[in-house]
Amino acid sequence: MTNPSLLILPGDGIGPEVMAEVRKIIDWFGAKRGITFDVSEDLVGGCAYDKHGTPLHDDTMAKAQEVDAVLLGAVGGPKYDALDFSIKPERGLLRLRKEMDLYSNLRPAQCFDALADFSSLKKDVVAGLDIMIVRELTSGVYFGEPRGIFEEGNERVGINTQRYTESEIDRVARSAFELAMKRGKKLCSMEKANVMESGILWREVVTEVGKDYPEVELSHMYADAGAMQLTRWPKQFDVIVTDNLFGDLLSDLAAMLTGSLGMLPSASLGAPMDNGRPKALYEPVHGSAPDIAGQGKANPCACILSFAMALRYSFDMGDEATRLEQAVNAVLAQGIRTADLLNEEGITPATTAEMGDAVVAAL
Amino acid sequence: MTNPSLLILPGDGIGPEVMAEVRKIIDWFGAKRGITFDVSEDLVGGCAYDKHGTPLHDDTMAKAQEVDAVLLGAVGGPKYDALDFSIKPERGLLRLRKEMDLYSNLRPAQCFDALADFSSLKKDVVAGLDIMIVRELTSGVYFGEPRGIFEEGNERVGINTQRYTESEIDRVARSAFELAMKRGKKLCSMEKANVMESGILWREVVTEVGKDYPEVELSHMYADAGAMQLTRWPKQFDVIVTDNLFGDLLSDLAAMLTGSLGMLPSASLGAPMDNGRPKALYEPVHGSAPDIAGQGKANPCACILSFAMALRYSFDMGDEATRLEQAVNAVLAQGIRTADLLNEEGITPATTAEMGDAVVAAL
Ligand SMILES: CC(C)[C@H](C(=O)O)[C@@H](O)C(=O)O
Ligand SMILES: CC(C)[C@H](C(=O)O)[C@@H](O)C(=O)O
Repeated sequence: MTNPSLLILPGDGIGPEVMAEVRKIIDWFGAKRGITFDVSEDLVGGCAYDKHGTPLHDDTMAKAQEVDAVLLGAVGGPKYDALDFSIKPERGLLRLRKEMDLYSNLRPAQCFDALADFSSLKKDVVAGLDIMIVRELTSGVYFGEPRGIFEEGNERVGINTQRYTESEIDRVARSAFELAMKRGKKLCSMEKANVMESGILWREVVTEVGKDYPEVELSHMYADAGAMQLTRWPKQFDVIVTDNLFGDLLSDLAAMLTGSLGMLPSASLGAPMDNGRPKALYEPVHGSAPDIAGQGKANPCACILSFAMALRYSFDMGDEATRLEQAVNAVLAQGIRTADLLNEEGITPATTAEMGDAVVAAL
Repeated sequence: MTNPSLLILPGDGIGPEVMAEVRKIIDWFGAKRGITFDVSEDLVGGCAYDKHGTPLHDDTMAKAQEVDAVLLGAVGGPKYDALDFSIKPERGLLRLRKEMDLYSNLRPAQCFDALADFSSLKKDVVAGLDIMIVRELTSGVYFGEPRGIFEEGNERVGINTQRYTESEIDRVARSAFELAMKRGKKLCSMEKANVMESGILWREVVTEVGKDYPEVELSHMYADAGAMQLTRWPKQFDVIVTDNLFGDLLSDLAAMLTGSLGMLPSASLGAPMDNGRPKALYEPVHGSAPDIAGQGKANPCACILSFAMALRYSFDMGDEATRLEQAVNAVLAQGIRTADLLNEEGITPATTAEMGDAVVAAL
């Protein structure tokens, strides 16, 4: 049997730093648990542009299609702000999502007990919070045509197209129902069916798919009301399914509720490959944080927990994933904190490397 | 000189109840301050559909175009859920916005001192919060063509179009800069320029308009980061300007931060009419709340404060507006609360009418 393969794309900003800590975890699994990954590494985002003039080289794209899972750090930075839209760092990430057809983006918003105080929300509102946002990731306004900036009369007009086919909605809805079955059996679908026809179709198809999951309690909410309800009382939710653009905003909002953005992983899953594993890319919810890049201040936990998601969803190693998650929890319980998890003055924060070492020690 | 004219559209659900309290305020201004409005009343939303088979009759539309200001309660309700998209209650409201060309939607998110405890956010995060969201209201994905549900191959596809011209962005940006000049001179513009070309044009035009307002500190933020930052530390913002769809979500989010949704008014303003007054529609941020309609439980303050905004923006009666706002504050300070502003058991809430009477008494 060949080893499971993993393509690591550290990317820009704090990406390389947090990924270095994941490497320590991977090494630990090899040395102590006899679980060896075939790891390769490549460029994505601004660093790929710097080397190749494109945010994702075709060779990297091809590699991503072949491996069992991709682990990505973060992309982007002010250095690339002036670049043309088509070669911005983000396009590298979007190309990976699109060409790997990763339609189901799982974004857990989980409040870590040790960090409940750190949220801007009241402790009772967020303590124990554990919701999963399933965001459609390969369609909608992110990829719809026509798009662009056009001349019209004597002025310009900016155009993007929101577009969803029934089958696109069907498959992401199914993945959300499957997840709901494994969790609290509650699913809330969010759109703007009162204003957008694409939302009407969305609601219709999700309702239809729901008939195959009679045990799941399905509800529908307008996305603006969803933003409100997430803010007011997030624990009313279990799984939320929504489109690419609403999912972008709502999952960031949900992440921020927990107060521990530096802790949150994500998985982007596609259809099963020949080996039965889904196409998959794992990445932290946080961005490249150029303001603290290279200073050893970044929190590696979101990236480490993204690797835990890879263990669970790509490699059927649920127990190992849980072991890793518990190690992270144990480190938090010891009071070890990177700078993002501290709001008091006078405490010296752990560095990125110290945090990674602590997780390895806890393993 | 003729009296200023006001068209009242109570609408559905709790609309008529809260509007009845505004009528008391209007009467008070007539009796005690000699300020008399020519008030007419008409139907919008579900109730208009019930009577006329359309959520906004052409005669009502024509009246709205003629008056100095429109005051609207709320539209919608489960009774109308099965109606075809084109005759849903919401279409009545959207037609008013579009045909009156009300491009600048002002949504203050203000935390009332007496209510700071009521937010799901920590008191220090929201106490004293006072931000203004300026939402573009007549374009974007709400009105862009093509739109609809179409057959494509052997399945259906739902399509909506996000569309912004330079002049549409220019005019709403200007209104936001003007507001910023009267406030804290800080403006943050939100879009997804990293993903959407319409966002690129938005950022470009806002930047250009900013050159006419060198005193205003302009910043740009991606809308997902905006949702995060609003949740994390909303007091970093003064005025926010954003498009129709992002504005829908972000203003609801901001409203919910304050914990006092039942307190929040809004103004939708268009170009100046012949008399120099802007076309204007005022409405509470909350919806029709069908679950509590007809029970005397609704909080009339948002609608009363919408009338205060009308005094300020349509009738140049800033002092009278402030007087009314202070009356509402005084009532809160007395501890008078409708049910939505109470989270303890055992206190009997004020009814809608009692709250309205208390405001009149405080005046
Ligand atoms: C970097 C950007 C293109 C991306 C998105 O908008 O999807 C990010 O915000 C995310 O949520 O993963
Ligand atoms: C009722 C609905 C059409 C409306 C909107 O989406 O604009 C509402 O949510 C609002 O924000 O005023």
